[in-house]
Amino acid sequence: MFENSTRTELSSLGEFGLIEHLTKDNETKHGSTLKSIGDDAAVIKFENNEETLVSSDMLIEGVHFDLTYVPLKHLGFKAVTVNVSDIYAMNGTPKQILMNLAISSRFSLEAIEEFYSGVYAACKFYNVDLIGGDTTSSLSGLAISVTVIGSANKEEIVYRNGAQEKNLLVVTGDLGGAYMGLQILEREKSVYQADPNMQPDLEGHDYILERQLKPIARKDIKELLKKCKVRPTAMIDISDGLASEVIHLCRQSKLGIQIFEEKIPLDPQTIDGAKEMGLDPSVVALNGGEDYELLMAIDINDYEKLKDHLHFSIIGHFTAESAGYNMVSKTGTLVPITAQGWDALLKR
Amino acid sequence: MFENSTRTELSSLGEFGLIEHLTKDNETKHGSTLKSIGDDAAVIKFENNEETLVSSDMLIEGVHFDLTYVPLKHLGFKAVTVNVSDIYAMNGTPKQILMNLAISSRFSLEAIEEFYSGVYAACKFYNVDLIGGDTTSSLSGLAISVTVIGSANKEEIVYRNGAQEKNLLVVTGDLGGAYMGLQILEREKSVYQADPNMQPDLEGHDYILERQLKPIARKDIKELLKKCKVRPTAMIDISDGLASEVIHLCRQSKLGIQIFEEKIPLDPQTIDGAKEMGLDPSVVALNGGEDYELLMAIDINDYEKLKDHLHFSIIGHFTAESAGYNMVSKTGTLVPITAQGWDALLKR
Repeated sequence: MFENSTRTELSSLGEFGLIEHLTKDNETKHGSTLKSIGDDAAVIKFENNEETLVSSDMLIEGVHFDLTYVPLKHLGFKAVTVNVSDIYAMNGTPKQILMNLAISSRFSLEAIEEFYSGVYAACKFYNVDLIGGDTTSSLSGLAISVTVIGSANKEEIVYRNGAQEKNLLVVTGDLGGAYMGLQILEREKSVYQADPNMQPDLEGHDYILERQLKPIARKDIKELLKKCKVRPTAMIDISDGLASEVIHLCRQSKLGIQIFEEKIPLDPQTIDGAKEMGLDPSVVALNGGEDYELLMAIDINDYEKLKDHLHFSIIGHFTAESAGYNMVSKTGTLVPITAQGWDALLKR
Repeated sequence: MFENSTRTELSSLGEFGLIEHLTKDNETKHGSTLKSIGDDAAVIKFENNEETLVSSDMLIEGVHFDLTYVPLKHLGFKAVTVNVSDIYAMNGTPKQILMNLAISSRFSLEAIEEFYSGVYAACKFYNVDLIGGDTTSSLSGLAISVTVIGSANKEEIVYRNGAQEKNLLVVTGDLGGAYMGLQILEREKSVYQADPNMQPDLEGHDYILERQLKPIARKDIKELLKKCKVRPTAMIDISDGLASEVIHLCRQSKLGIQIFEEKIPLDPQTIDGAKEMGLDPSVVALNGGEDYELLMAIDINDYEKLKDHLHFSIIGHFTAESAGYNMVSKTGTLVPITAQGWDALLKR
């Protein structure tokens, strides 16, 4: 992407010129967005019965993404996904985002336009308004910091700490795909680095590659749960792996957990990819991050409502805190669950 | 500061351990903060007559700050100041912040504790709650991204675009000090680099050094204006220099401006520092950034209310757009004003 025929230096526009250029077609959709980009602060007004949800996440080049194989447009989309996912995890609806970017001189205007095309695509997909942010330079690499603002009625909001003993543990979609996609990309990068004449072998991995490169936050779940008449007692999104997230729910709800390995939802491509790389698919699901599925506790009386649902898998149940965090393996043995989730601070 | 006797590696705590450690004594003060750190998102509820203000800014090592001479505690304080200043510029009251940090392995736990001690001091000083954020690693350097949330009644909020022809241009405090402080620090850094035995000569510069290292956002202005019964028609904070900010007000209000050079408020230390470095103090005030004073338009009928006020200087008036942006110099000539403000994208 750095081999475009045109390359416009960012310094030729300056900060305000760049912001004007990137946001000239920006339109806001929500009545709650009273003032968007262009003042010292954006102004929002939600309905009187709504509470405001706010979350903020960073993505750092070389830590969270590798531009060798991540297209900038996908990265822009993913930066929004990662953030709106946190609002869905509260059972809320994301409404606005602020996008902060620190950019080194390595990036041309065309590169940043690519990134923003992904941001705008995500804003459209998730129905959120881009209402502000900061664009500045960095000495090296790209640093992205997104803040998302959402809303929900008080009685809709689901916290992490509301799970009860005997609640069922439910997860949306399937797990481990994003991590396996990353492993495939990293493998092909090594192959390419060893011999640039080798073409990357990505065939048969399209689903898990998409899980890694263009994850989709579960904007559909709030509505699906409403239709099923299920209100989770606790919820979290899976950004760091099932093990890490379930322990968050347990700690905050002061409970233990029993997960059944055979119930963990895995896509066939995740299983194939794991086998190809000599990994255990269950371990990949437990410790691989970035799936952006939702993990929740539901009342045991809601079992029938979700047990055969396409989008939900019941994978375990909450126990007393003293029973700890365990998984019943496929062979019937009890394995303790520890959080080996993707820890950005341990990576370095 | 990296020569502490104890050095605890951040990797020994991991992301969640670090967050727990840094936020264990965090207390929230505002009734509007319903849920602080510890869930997927923070939850806020302002009064029904209040609107929500949101702004977000980044500070990047090597671009916005130099840890050779910026103490980490001051940096933590300044990161908050820069952001709350945007809420004051809307005539609002900051209530909550989210702090995102990307940290390289160069930083120890003790260093990050220092930074956070400044953040907490600022939260106390500005009466804001720390309600969330993201802590992650970077390949090199420190990247800080802060989001601030504030509130104001609808009729209190002051935008950039409300100035009217013949309105007076008013600025708080004095200008150029932060920039002159930076010049002194950069000079002494060069001296030190040339000969590490030389002690930095900072004497007589305490005020401008403080303006650079520990700027204070004008939390007092909203109340002062209320007491004077003055409601600005437009307002902005001065982060990039008077020239750049006044042009923002003019463009958004579709007006021109005439500033009187002799009216620009300068501290004696700023004048002395400028002379010492061979700079024109007015140019320093026009183009030097980071003063975090407030620049506003007021009705000409409010002249008497502010003309002798300690905290306000009337420095010009708005004209028709066609008259352009001009300064009447001390010698009486008309000089065009151009935005040569501190542009982070031009620096690289």
